[in-house]
Amino acid sequence: MKAPLSREEFVEWVTREGESRYHDHHRYHALMHDGKLTRVQLQQWVLNRYYYQTRVPIKDAIILSKSEDPLFRRMWIHRIRDHDGDEGGGEAGLELWLRLAEGVGLDREEVASCRSVLPGVRFACDAYVTLVRERSLVEAVASSLTEFFAPDLMTKRVLAWEKHYPWVGEEMLAYFRSRPPKARRDSNEAIDFVVRHAATYEMQERCVAALIRKTEILWHLVDCLYAAYIDPGWGPGGGRA
Amino acid sequence: MKAPLSREEFVEWVTREGESRYHDHHRYHALMHDGKLTRVQLQQWVLNRYYYQTRVPIKDAIILSKSEDPLFRRMWIHRIRDHDGDEGGGEAGLELWLRLAEGVGLDREEVASCRSVLPGVRFACDAYVTLVRERSLVEAVASSLTEFFAPDLMTKRVLAWEKHYPWVGEEMLAYFRSRPPKARRDSNEAIDFVVRHAATYEMQERCVAALIRKTEILWHLVDCLYAAYIDPGWGPGGGRA
Repeated sequence: MKAPLSREEFVEWVTREGESRYHDHHRYHALMHDGKLTRVQLQQWVLNRYYYQTRVPIKDAIILSKSEDPLFRRMWIHRIRDHDGDEGGGEAGLELWLRLAEGVGLDREEVASCRSVLPGVRFACDAYVTLVRERSLVEAVASSLTEFFAPDLMTKRVLAWEKHYPWVGEEMLAYFRSRPPKARRDSNEAIDFVVRHAATYEMQERCVAALIRKTEILWHLVDCLYAAYIDPGWGPGGGRA
Repeated sequence: MKAPLSREEFVEWVTREGESRYHDHHRYHALMHDGKLTRVQLQQWVLNRYYYQTRVPIKDAIILSKSEDPLFRRMWIHRIRDHDGDEGGGEAGLELWLRLAEGVGLDREEVASCRSVLPGVRFACDAYVTLVRERSLVEAVASSLTEFFAPDLMTKRVLAWEKHYPWVGEEMLAYFRSRPPKARRDSNEAIDFVVRHAATYEMQERCVAALIRKTEILWHLVDCLYAAYIDPGWGPGGGRA
């Protein structure tokens, strides 16, 4: 049996796999940040990605439900509030995303209904919920480690949108501005938990596998957008969409 | 409240939605049947579709588990045997598919391991299992009604493969030859069950929705193959695959 890696080696492995597979490398994002997306292509990204956003508090509630430790649950629960808000509603993630949707010219109710989400995007986002439900707590937490790479992407995105898509009001970008400090805090909490609880080499390997699956989910989301809105395929019925 | 449709109207609705969305219209299949797939493109279809095949007896076992009626279970159980075989193993669906895989020049163990399945194909096939798990028995059965349209596709496929891909031995096509009578029997049993148990208009609507989701799953499978092997996208890391 292989001995577990040291903290440094394990973190290095996680970072390498996550960074090289993170969806910031995807050509849909490359086009977005170069200002080359049309209005419709930008709108469809916002609309489809909203379905992902709605899955996040659900998967976090599943993670909560898997832990027997009130300390862990107390640490984790703010993630749900970050997206859902407090009883008064307000400025939380889902609300800010719907404001972004309005900012790019979409109908709020249409986006909130999720009825126009691409099938493949739905399959990928649902796969995230299923992964978290079916694997162990430590693997489920490891799958959230893509947050490590989010702050850079968000910062880049705000600059790119201000420059290339000025028709989207600056105040609409509040979601992207709000995330970097939260993502930093969340990913630090998560890596700390994963390092402490992945006690065998085999479990370290399973944690890396969960993170890789998560990067595939994020990647597939933009792959579907690319196929549908940049290099469109044939819709059912055989006509080129 | 809307009154339920008559048997004829409901079957007509199911047939119309299923037929127009069935994956035989997909361009990957159009290329396959026109003899325009390369060896690798044909192999990858066989390899990725095998993952779908492995999900079928699992979703059928979930359907079995949802029924309280021994008569229904007795009718349904042969579907699992059709894929898994009897205790002696033998000529059942999964075995015939692995033979097909060898016939197109793939390594049997590699295919059986499912380790090279495209992420999006995995998400779509897993979505089928989840759909069957989460919806009611009658909706789960309705999602199987794509079998209605399988016999024509299978028959067309055998003729096309014999003509265009003669390097695949004829005896390797046993799976496609074995399916049409089974698919006819299965879809007749299923539509009969769905018609009898979808007693309200709302449930008829839900059954059609389940069938539509299923057609999206089948469609997405070949969409992923198209994006990966005919019009390849960028793999993680940013290089065009």
